[in-house]
Amino acid sequence: MTATTTATAGEALARRAADVIPGGMYGHQAVRNLSPKYPQFFAGGDGAVIRDVDGNEYVDLMCSWGPIVLGHRDPVVNRAVQDQMDAGDCLAGPSATLVDLAELMVDTIADADWVLFGKNGTDATTACLSITRAHTARSVILVARGVYHGAAPWCTPDPTGTLASDRIAMGYFDYNDQESFDRALEAAGDDFAGVMLTPFLHVEGRDQELVTPDFARHIRRVCDERDTLLILDDVRCGFRIAHGGSWEPLGVRVDLSAWSKAIANGYPLSAVTGSDAVRAAASRVFLTGSFWMNSTPMAASLATIRRLAEIDGLARMQRAGARLRAGIVAQAAHHGIEIDYTGPDVMPYLTFAGDVEHRRMIRFAEAALRAGVYLHPRHNWFMSAAMDDEVIDRVLRGTEIAFDEVAKHALR
Amino acid sequence: MTATTTATAGEALARRAADVIPGGMYGHQAVRNLSPKYPQFFAGGDGAVIRDVDGNEYVDLMCSWGPIVLGHRDPVVNRAVQDQMDAGDCLAGPSATLVDLAELMVDTIADADWVLFGKNGTDATTACLSITRAHTARSVILVARGVYHGAAPWCTPDPTGTLASDRIAMGYFDYNDQESFDRALEAAGDDFAGVMLTPFLHVEGRDQELVTPDFARHIRRVCDERDTLLILDDVRCGFRIAHGGSWEPLGVRVDLSAWSKAIANGYPLSAVTGSDAVRAAASRVFLTGSFWMNSTPMAASLATIRRLAEIDGLARMQRAGARLRAGIVAQAAHHGIEIDYTGPDVMPYLTFAGDVEHRRMIRFAEAALRAGVYLHPRHNWFMSAAMDDEVIDRVLRGTEIAFDEVAKHALR
Repeated sequence: MTATTTATAGEALARRAADVIPGGMYGHQAVRNLSPKYPQFFAGGDGAVIRDVDGNEYVDLMCSWGPIVLGHRDPVVNRAVQDQMDAGDCLAGPSATLVDLAELMVDTIADADWVLFGKNGTDATTACLSITRAHTARSVILVARGVYHGAAPWCTPDPTGTLASDRIAMGYFDYNDQESFDRALEAAGDDFAGVMLTPFLHVEGRDQELVTPDFARHIRRVCDERDTLLILDDVRCGFRIAHGGSWEPLGVRVDLSAWSKAIANGYPLSAVTGSDAVRAAASRVFLTGSFWMNSTPMAASLATIRRLAEIDGLARMQRAGARLRAGIVAQAAHHGIEIDYTGPDVMPYLTFAGDVEHRRMIRFAEAALRAGVYLHPRHNWFMSAAMDDEVIDRVLRGTEIAFDEVAKHALR
Repeated sequence: MTATTTATAGEALARRAADVIPGGMYGHQAVRNLSPKYPQFFAGGDGAVIRDVDGNEYVDLMCSWGPIVLGHRDPVVNRAVQDQMDAGDCLAGPSATLVDLAELMVDTIADADWVLFGKNGTDATTACLSITRAHTARSVILVARGVYHGAAPWCTPDPTGTLASDRIAMGYFDYNDQESFDRALEAAGDDFAGVMLTPFLHVEGRDQELVTPDFARHIRRVCDERDTLLILDDVRCGFRIAHGGSWEPLGVRVDLSAWSKAIANGYPLSAVTGSDAVRAAASRVFLTGSFWMNSTPMAASLATIRRLAEIDGLARMQRAGARLRAGIVAQAAHHGIEIDYTGPDVMPYLTFAGDVEHRRMIRFAEAALRAGVYLHPRHNWFMSAAMDDEVIDRVLRGTEIAFDEVAKHALR
């Protein structure tokens, strides 16, 4: 702390934002619930690195909360975007790019016979609900308690401003708990239309849980027996776990999938894919938005999905994630600190044993931030294909300092 | 019709799309409900002109259904987008561009003390509902019958796949009908939370109606008396009618406004603006999306709003719209054809007297299309600042041919 009162660029922006943005900032990237040391405003990014407006550089373990899968400002993706801009973007209808992308997705994704595009992940999950209701002529959609499916009134984690009726046709069960699922099923009765699930359990502030294959198969079986639909919300996991959809490795078929985040390396696009059986219903639901046919995010997506295949981006992310896991686990052991490091290597989540209020994790995250590693203390992290061994080693130098800090305070 | 079976580029794309897109195409730009002569796929655009994938060029009277306000591929906007891409777009938070844009909007828009950004117009209208309910702790929102406020379950014009409960807290009245409004108000009772209105009545397939000042003032008075909110859905009209909001010229204050379409000349952005009184409620509602902090659409918006002011784009659109109206009215009179040409000059709508099934209008639109003018037979058209006298004269040469065609068939 110096004697001068000169505001940093970030502080100056935060003061201006306080005047023109309710609460100073909104949404999942608002830092008001984090340590005041977290930068709110960013100037740019390159590959695995982001820079805040004060020139501080961080390895970005959040990948912008998922979208950045090839790295920031990926040159191949940005070239595709600029080429599409040179032709046209928002026209009186789609360009050929929409068809090229839809074909690529149908070829790439195991259970996709068709595709619809939107902008937000919430557009995709909400469309899946409407398509399911149109297909089954039934109402009740079962979802797992506490799981994030978007910010629309039917699913927002904070119901302020929504109505009880927005969730009147939702049923709830505990993820990976077959008995709990069966109870929700019974409560839904004849009005059971479908189930929406994330590929694994990722809930802010809780250790992650992979899906148990028996649970996934049970849901598939019930949906088949009851002629209802299984919807995979692959918004957060898609194109990180498996090219063909996050349950493809499990061998459990899904009827509808929602996609967004990593689909276009940060350009605004979401998608619904589905099977032929659901195609007619999908064509009957009115789904639209002013920018849903824009070609530049589709050009970005085409380049992203192709590039991920070309460079085997998922293997790169897996290698980075495995190296990070091994490093973190070793550092914790070396410090004698008990941790849980849960979820897939490419989307890990760290907690400290007994740290129910996340105090140690907040200390860890602050120390990592000072050491040049941007991570969130209560949300899973993301790997990108831009994270090579050198980047992960740089992260580990930061986490080593962070573990030191946690250990030091644990001793007091 | 020739003997060859070679498909055009547009036909080839339509066949491919039929395999991978439910119904072949979706949303408001799907041409399946239009004449088969309408192109579905576009290759590009420049200024006031668009080109389909078969190389046909049209003056674009739809402006991509509203977003294109400065013209396609506006060089100033696209330069701003590329400069922002060179810095960064989808980062761990917003860039300074968000604050610059929010300040510009607060300075520009009469009733705006703060701004929130989303992607879709529907994001903005839905957020307005939630903010209104959070602010008033009441439920019922009154809207005008048949008016389009987006494609979410609470407002989609085609309820397929939605539930009756999605509209349980909506009340309906007839636009410009004070008695009808008062009846809806009475039905809402103590649970009346707010009213959402478009700046004037624009409903697909119906003549447009400007708002009557008495009606607007009545609603304002009721909202004040009942401590409820007046929400202006300026998604379609914003930045075409008046810089400061479409009811600014009327002198009727609004509490919340929804914006999208023309806000960023085609780049995906929407916004909610509101007054200080509603700020606290706006900060309590959880509103978010993966790409809502992306900087390139905000850079596009900043450039668009500044450019509109610099070149007095609204005056240009007004001049173009007045010239088009005068030309169309003269052509109709010359052909002895009775028409209605309704709505503001910058967003006009043409119907033929007694043409309840739109047959003459469909014939008119097809002939205009063949003559190089892209317009919709059942939806209002839009002016852009790229439409100079020469462009409008080119349009009028097309509509002259179209009136000829309508007159010829009327004689049979």
